[in-house]
Amino acid sequence: MSNNIKTLALAQVAEVFDKHVPFHNLLGLDIKRYDENGVEVVVTMKPELIGNIHQQILHGGVTATVLDIVGGLTAFAGLVSSHDDWTLEALQERLTTLGTIDLRIDYLRPGRGEVFTGTGSVIRSGNRVSVCRMELHNEQGTHIAFGTGTYMVG
Amino acid sequence: MSNNIKTLALAQVAEVFDKHVPFHNLLGLDIKRYDENGVEVVVTMKPELIGNIHQQILHGGVTATVLDIVGGLTAFAGLVSSHDDWTLEALQERLTTLGTIDLRIDYLRPGRGEVFTGTGSVIRSGNRVSVCRMELHNEQGTHIAFGTGTYMVG
Amino acid sequence: MSNNIKTLALAQVAEVFDKHVPFHNLLGLDIKRYDENGVEVVVTMKPELIGNIHQQILHGGVTATVLDIVGGLTAFAGLVSSHDDWTLEALQERLTTLGTIDLRIDYLRPGRGEVFTGTGSVIRSGNRVSVCRMELHNEQGTHIAFGTGTYMVG
Amino acid sequence: MSNNIKTLALAQVAEVFDKHVPFHNLLGLDIKRYDENGVEVVVTMKPELIGNIHQQILHGGVTATVLDIVGGLTAFAGLVSSHDDWTLEALQERLTTLGTIDLRIDYLRPGRGEVFTGTGSVIRSGNRVSVCRMELHNEQGTHIAFGTGTYMVG
Repeated sequence: MSNNIKTLALAQVAEVFDKHVPFHNLLGLDIKRYDENGVEVVVTMKPELIGNIHQQILHGGVTATVLDIVGGLTAFAGLVSSHDDWTLEALQERLTTLGTIDLRIDYLRPGRGEVFTGTGSVIRSGNRVSVCRMELHNEQGTHIAFGTGTYMVG
Repeated sequence: MSNNIKTLALAQVAEVFDKHVPFHNLLGLDIKRYDENGVEVVVTMKPELIGNIHQQILHGGVTATVLDIVGGLTAFAGLVSSHDDWTLEALQERLTTLGTIDLRIDYLRPGRGEVFTGTGSVIRSGNRVSVCRMELHNEQGTHIAFGTGTYMVG
Repeated sequence: MSNNIKTLALAQVAEVFDKHVPFHNLLGLDIKRYDENGVEVVVTMKPELIGNIHQQILHGGVTATVLDIVGGLTAFAGLVSSHDDWTLEALQERLTTLGTIDLRIDYLRPGRGEVFTGTGSVIRSGNRVSVCRMELHNEQGTHIAFGTGTYMVG
Repeated sequence: MSNNIKTLALAQVAEVFDKHVPFHNLLGLDIKRYDENGVEVVVTMKPELIGNIHQQILHGGVTATVLDIVGGLTAFAGLVSSHDDWTLEALQERLTTLGTIDLRIDYLRPGRGEVFTGTGSVIRSGNRVSVCRMELHNEQGTHIAFGTGTYMVG
């Protein structure tokens, strides 16, 4: 029963982040997977996302955006997983307080590639604040960037 | 003479960042001012930049993007100012190595407003690496976010 | 009346941080000032705090330690200032949850000098989490380092 | 031949960091291992390193200090490994420029334990700047803190 609530809550969040956030639509972001075990956020290269026309690489702002979204979704999934007594209403209310407090991006390599996938994990979980680490790789497995973010979850 | 070279180099960079970076065009970024004393990067709210449709606020990824650009331009202006013997070719070559090593964003308040302006200053300058602090304010002077970034400049 | 409580609470915290934290005693830290308007934490150079015997400069770990303490004290003072209805017991309980979530140090210049003073200000205040910026200067006003820290305050 | 130079250079650095840095001696730091594959820096709990007398936990400043040292040593080992043509003099000169540009610490759990070990890896290597990630664990394998640092190596 409560697993149904968790699954439903995460599916609703994925739907919103995938379809109903205007800036995500502008970038063409795709929430490819989102469950209690984690998230995959994918962005596909297109000319408008280029940061350097000579090198044809992804703009660092796109990298930061994807890693921030991955971190927020990862933090929220961690909250959902933290106990089994959630009501759907309680989770929906928690979602309204979800927000980034601070974010660090480490740019490792130029953003070359066609399909970039962001993933993350919780490194500190709490009822109010969670800290996540995130990674961005291209379709060949090249590691483009690391992120570390602190998120308000309640 | 060398001041002409500096002015010319910064004007060329402003032109590229203002007009010829596809992702800057997608966001509608405007390099409003760029000289040895600093930079003002402006982004005007439009529906596509919204991160939360209920609250109608700027997406945190736009904030990160603007602050990263401000930091890079601030670091480069600091390099240009650091001595008087630059040739235009030397500065153009340095520009090709300009890149973000790491970036921290502190989100202070929701991104409400119509016109957001990013400014910055150099806190550590070097011939290879510079560190900058950046700020984003809305048109009413509300402080939306701080940034701290470490940039490769040579 | 409540101002007396605030003053008393901050004086108790200053006493603990100044006298009863073993690591602060090892470094010789001095909480020179602590009230609702801020804090000054002072460390005086001594041979044991040196990080580089050739350059005779303060170890970066001492810098990080002082800035972290300044940030925590600044965050707590901000919480105390946030409303007028505190009881001494409530503030003492909040103190037990005070802790650093994350900390960024930007090292600007070598730590040369005899007396180093750390100061800070709150950049984001909340009932659960606050974010502070901190600075370390030597006795000649040379700016040695910046800090940015996110603190749990409840 | 050049491997002998590398081994010798790292052994010299380990000797200095282990024995001849006054602040390392004050904390009782032990460079337990240092070679091209990485570093282990160990600190053993003693009363003077305590940050909270009620909880008897390691002071966060000790954690920051250990992780910063681990990051610097890891960055230098990466530089040593980067090619085979080093002379001992070249490496000794590089060591004089080794320094922390910025450092982020994420505190995950209270520093309970008897023996704390810091380890790290290079996430971005360069001839001038390297970025490392570091971890601190106690003797039971409990993960106490993460670090991320940007280091000047030339």
